Amino acid sequence: MSLDHVSDSTVRRLSNYLRVLDEVEREADELISSQGLAERAGVTPAQVRKDLSYFGAFGRRGLGYSVTSLRGEIRAILGLDRRWRVGLVGAGNIGSALFAYKEFARQGFDIVAVFDAAPDRIGQALGELEIRPMDDFERVCRERGVEIGVIATPAKDAQQIADLMARVGLRGILNFAPRKLFVPDTVALRTVNMAIELESLSFALAQDEHSGHGRGGVPLVD
Amino acid sequence: MSLDHVSDSTVRRLSNYLRVLDEVEREADELISSQGLAERAGVTPAQVRKDLSYFGAFGRRGLGYSVTSLRGEIRAILGLDRRWRVGLVGAGNIGSALFAYKEFARQGFDIVAVFDAAPDRIGQALGELEIRPMDDFERVCRERGVEIGVIATPAKDAQQIADLMARVGLRGILNFAPRKLFVPDTVALRTVNMAIELESLSFALAQDEHSGHGRGGVPLVD
Repeated sequence: MSLDHVSDSTVRRLSNYLRVLDEVEREADELISSQGLAERAGVTPAQVRKDLSYFGAFGRRGLGYSVTSLRGEIRAILGLDRRWRVGLVGAGNIGSALFAYKEFARQGFDIVAVFDAAPDRIGQALGELEIRPMDDFERVCRERGVEIGVIATPAKDAQQIADLMARVGLRGILNFAPRKLFVPDTVALRTVNMAIELESLSFALAQDEHSGHGRGGVPLVD
Repeated sequence: MSLDHVSDSTVRRLSNYLRVLDEVEREADELISSQGLAERAGVTPAQVRKDLSYFGAFGRRGLGYSVTSLRGEIRAILGLDRRWRVGLVGAGNIGSALFAYKEFARQGFDIVAVFDAAPDRIGQALGELEIRPMDDFERVCRERGVEIGVIATPAKDAQQIADLMARVGLRGILNFAPRKLFVPDTVALRTVNMAIELESLSFALAQDEHSGHGRGGVPLVD
């Protein structure tokens, strides 16, 4: 089955369905209707049926979908049924938090090497890994079979790191630096940009204030 | 000036321009052309001129824009020229990382209260703040004038916390829990969803593999 034509928005909805199915499974329900899945995912039942039929998953009329098998199918489609070897660049706040973030490993991403440019961090331990200098990047990535690079550096260094990752042959990059990056078509790039979400939030709140909708916030106690 | 009709994608481009201007300012350049800004932001010069003229910023032909004044204008538009009082719910990995993340404060977001539901965390210190129980949420938010809530809890608790934040009158929510949340129209909600980016990345890599584009990764050393 070729899924080359699947849009990014469909993939994001599948991620969202998976979150719901994870929850439903924890609640020990065995079946879920397209209506039930739609409600919890915040989309229409027609959208759910369309997205799922597309992947050959069909619920039984009046019964719905088997939670376990649908969850397994979506995990396989999203490539979550295998593990990925990750090289982390940047052992600061974000890098360390990511390293400690259990969900990252739970989703199949194993950090197998950590790099930093700061002399005082090199040689230190992060979990069971030793923080390596950037000069070792290519060699360590080869030795450990790194497939995905994570960029958790200051914005100013991020493009240079992305260039290195592409040159070394990594297939995917997850970027946490607040900067737009340019990579060759052969590299899949995704960005987690907290700064942009923050600014979008701050914009919405500032506009609300400017347009005189009132503060609406929690009043300060006198 | 009412900016109610500004699309979210425009706001995101403005965030992106701001990142570029921050960099250019650090490089001590005083002027930037729409061409130069466009190249570094990864959009067309026409898009830059359109976005900026919209806000009444006009470069001088042949000279370009003043970096300092353009940066100041965009910061004001995005509501970054003031400070926001933030209440953080969840003092685990993500909450602690956010607390330690200097960029968050630099962008004007001050965490003034921290809450958690876990008995072993309540009463502990996070920086100079004491972690408070959820029962204190409303009272502490009132006392400290909290305007924005950050959700850094497990997914299963996130909707309940969002409901509480809306009920208490917070104006904005930044959600880090990997779950779609529902809030009233009066509350601005933004989500930083690492799980969705990860799954989108993993999907792209898995498809690449299925479609036989070859591994293309770093070969393992024998």
